Amino acid sequence: MADKPTVGFIGLGIMGKPMALNVLKAGFPLVVHNRSRGPVEELVAAGAEDGSSPKGVAQRAEIILMCLPNSPDVQLVVEGPDGVFEGISPGKVIVDMSTISPVVARDLAAKAEKLGADMLDAPVSGGDIGARQGTLSIMVGGKREVFEQVLPVFQAMGKNIVYIGEAGAGQVTKACNQIVVALTIEAISEALVLAAKAGVDPAKVREALLGGFAQSRILDVHGQRLLDRNFQPGFKTRLHYKDLKIALETGRTYGVPLPVTGLVHEFYGALMATDKAELDHSALATLIEQMAGTEVRRAT
Amino acid sequence: MADKPTVGFIGLGIMGKPMALNVLKAGFPLVVHNRSRGPVEELVAAGAEDGSSPKGVAQRAEIILMCLPNSPDVQLVVEGPDGVFEGISPGKVIVDMSTISPVVARDLAAKAEKLGADMLDAPVSGGDIGARQGTLSIMVGGKREVFEQVLPVFQAMGKNIVYIGEAGAGQVTKACNQIVVALTIEAISEALVLAAKAGVDPAKVREALLGGFAQSRILDVHGQRLLDRNFQPGFKTRLHYKDLKIALETGRTYGVPLPVTGLVHEFYGALMATDKAELDHSALATLIEQMAGTEVRRAT
Repeated sequence: MADKPTVGFIGLGIMGKPMALNVLKAGFPLVVHNRSRGPVEELVAAGAEDGSSPKGVAQRAEIILMCLPNSPDVQLVVEGPDGVFEGISPGKVIVDMSTISPVVARDLAAKAEKLGADMLDAPVSGGDIGARQGTLSIMVGGKREVFEQVLPVFQAMGKNIVYIGEAGAGQVTKACNQIVVALTIEAISEALVLAAKAGVDPAKVREALLGGFAQSRILDVHGQRLLDRNFQPGFKTRLHYKDLKIALETGRTYGVPLPVTGLVHEFYGALMATDKAELDHSALATLIEQMAGTEVRRAT
Repeated sequence: MADKPTVGFIGLGIMGKPMALNVLKAGFPLVVHNRSRGPVEELVAAGAEDGSSPKGVAQRAEIILMCLPNSPDVQLVVEGPDGVFEGISPGKVIVDMSTISPVVARDLAAKAEKLGADMLDAPVSGGDIGARQGTLSIMVGGKREVFEQVLPVFQAMGKNIVYIGEAGAGQVTKACNQIVVALTIEAISEALVLAAKAGVDPAKVREALLGGFAQSRILDVHGQRLLDRNFQPGFKTRLHYKDLKIALETGRTYGVPLPVTGLVHEFYGALMATDKAELDHSALATLIEQMAGTEVRRAT
């Protein structure tokens, strides 16, 4: 059996830290970096090395993973001073697991190729629970043979791991995912608030609709959240707002008008202006509830 | 074993005729009426009686079903001259299986009660295929004991038969269903057109999303329709346009703003102005496709 390659991990936040821990647990030598020291010390205590900078991580690791908040963070970590590109050498693989702009992902992948390295975009879904449990969905763009090479590392972090296509395809898929999820939350919000205000038990409506053509995982999970008034994240409003912005920018870049995505992005913007930015993204329903002056509750 | 009650059926259209035939096949004595003669003669040839008017049907049947295009048709057949109310007597049950306004449904149920009769609203989903195969979903509002009484007749026509609540609850549930279905079609349209125009195989995106939180029956079935360019109905654009109008009117009656439902209703209105009114409601995607100048197709 071949020795396991050394893996790097940059960005040890609410998602990145448990993902890095799972890579370590799967037996990969791990070298890490994070802007703040706390998570680095935790990982070092668990057996990882401190790479001290993105450049340091890229010098020591063969596969360099990162999980960062947004496009500018990824650009800084990859192209900036003491960045990954300064430490990279031919044959190494950069894997960006952040949710960022597909346009930026394609640009960075092209630049990596010029340096003789490979880059995959591999955004995830499944939230911090999926990150901890190693059950994330991972959508991957880049060269197929590079995907095959990194697959054992992905398997340490996720369950539903799908190769989509060329560079950027993972980020495009994630943008599509976030569009469908947001618009479906809006759909069940309008429907269940209507039911409640028209005097019909929303729990019964949810149940009836789950048995037919309107069935969705969102209706199942977030329909139940609305009935239970449970807006503890889950996936935060703030992050979905950011992800829809990426989807809209992608639409503008490629020439695809996204009228309802634009409207729902505005609704998330309305939530951002209140104290609801840190609530679960299903809190979108509270806007309709406020306008209707009612709440979706289990009939009592 | 008690004798089966005589069932009436008014409105033998694309939905009503196969539904009535299934009631007949299940062994219920059947008396029918339809504005045009053709379907009446077909049903009589199959063993039904000709009731000659809604009044005539109500006089001869114990359970009077109807399946009509819209609220005004139901009001005319029930309250109009030679209508059901003229032939009804205490203890009989009227069952409206049309998709109409919940407000009208509640009004007619209250009027029926004053005449000593009962009325259920029992809209269906599942299309003409479900009507022929006897596999419709049926959402029922009215008194529970009346629902139990009619259940054997429902079972001749449908599979997923759900009692929701008081009068009008069936129509409210149907309105909710049509909101969720329409908005989910819009969601997958925006997502899959974005994928296609951004150079990513929409078939792969559909597959990846079906494995995660964006999963829905619409993404499965209509996602495949978009890939196959199959807009043969199915459920017609024209009918979904009508059903969203009912949902919006219901929202206005009960004080629930439905912003995205309103917008998607407008989009269906745009299709109504073209030759797409008779296409499957998944043709909603063609609006985004036209604006983007691309089509969702399986990558070749």
